[in-house]
Amino acid sequence: MAHALLDHVQFDDDGLVAAIAQDHASGTVLMVAYMNADTLQETLDTGRMVYWSRSRQTVWRKGETSGNVQHVHEVRIDCDGDMLLFKVEQVGNAACHTGHQSCFYRRVEDESLVNDGTKVFDPETVYGS
Amino acid sequence: MAHALLDHVQFDDDGLVAAIAQDHASGTVLMVAYMNADTLQETLDTGRMVYWSRSRQTVWRKGETSGNVQHVHEVRIDCDGDMLLFKVEQVGNAACHTGHQSCFYRRVEDESLVNDGTKVFDPETVYGS
Repeated sequence: MAHALLDHVQFDDDGLVAAIAQDHASGTVLMVAYMNADTLQETLDTGRMVYWSRSRQTVWRKGETSGNVQHVHEVRIDCDGDMLLFKVEQVGNAACHTGHQSCFYRRVEDESLVNDGTKVFDPETVYGS
Repeated sequence: MAHALLDHVQFDDDGLVAAIAQDHASGTVLMVAYMNADTLQETLDTGRMVYWSRSRQTVWRKGETSGNVQHVHEVRIDCDGDMLLFKVEQVGNAACHTGHQSCFYRRVEDESLVNDGTKVFDPETVYGS
């Protein structure tokens, strides 16, 4: 049965909704990706984050390749229903395909960007070259 | 002069990029809205969050009506450049037009949604009825 949450989600013209993954303990924003109705339902059913990959146009079970799955601790929806917030436990402590803990590893400093993110793994080792 | 950050932003087909506003002290995700190049530049120049309202198709200087401006403490960009993360100080402690501290005031609990957000003001008092 479809979860009641799905009635409140405003999917966009492509049938997608953006989902923020936030570390449940530290509050660090790890990444933002998209879900369609099916992958949102699977996320709710399994307690693991399942996205829709816009670039590959396929279901993206986060961590299927890297092992860095995201266990869902809490699910929230914003006032107008077009954004979801998931508090998650990030296995392996790295959400980003670049090997960083967070995809937001670059910070604006004066007129430039600095990389001050925590790098957890070498992507070439995990995904192959 | 345009800030170097703008060269790294992947604006969408409408010329917009999504921006997460996160409380700089508590880590609470307050809201997500959009910026175009001009409002992003104004945000960087002024240190106050300036969005582009998709519904009203106009510049949205956050807090102009309610007084609840957002002072920028830190600016981050994600790995693929299509999402920005701003750590902000939320004046008035309420980011949401509903009067809640955060737009994500509804949480999934079992098969329903519960409102467990902190309500800071009555929107009718602030914006008029």
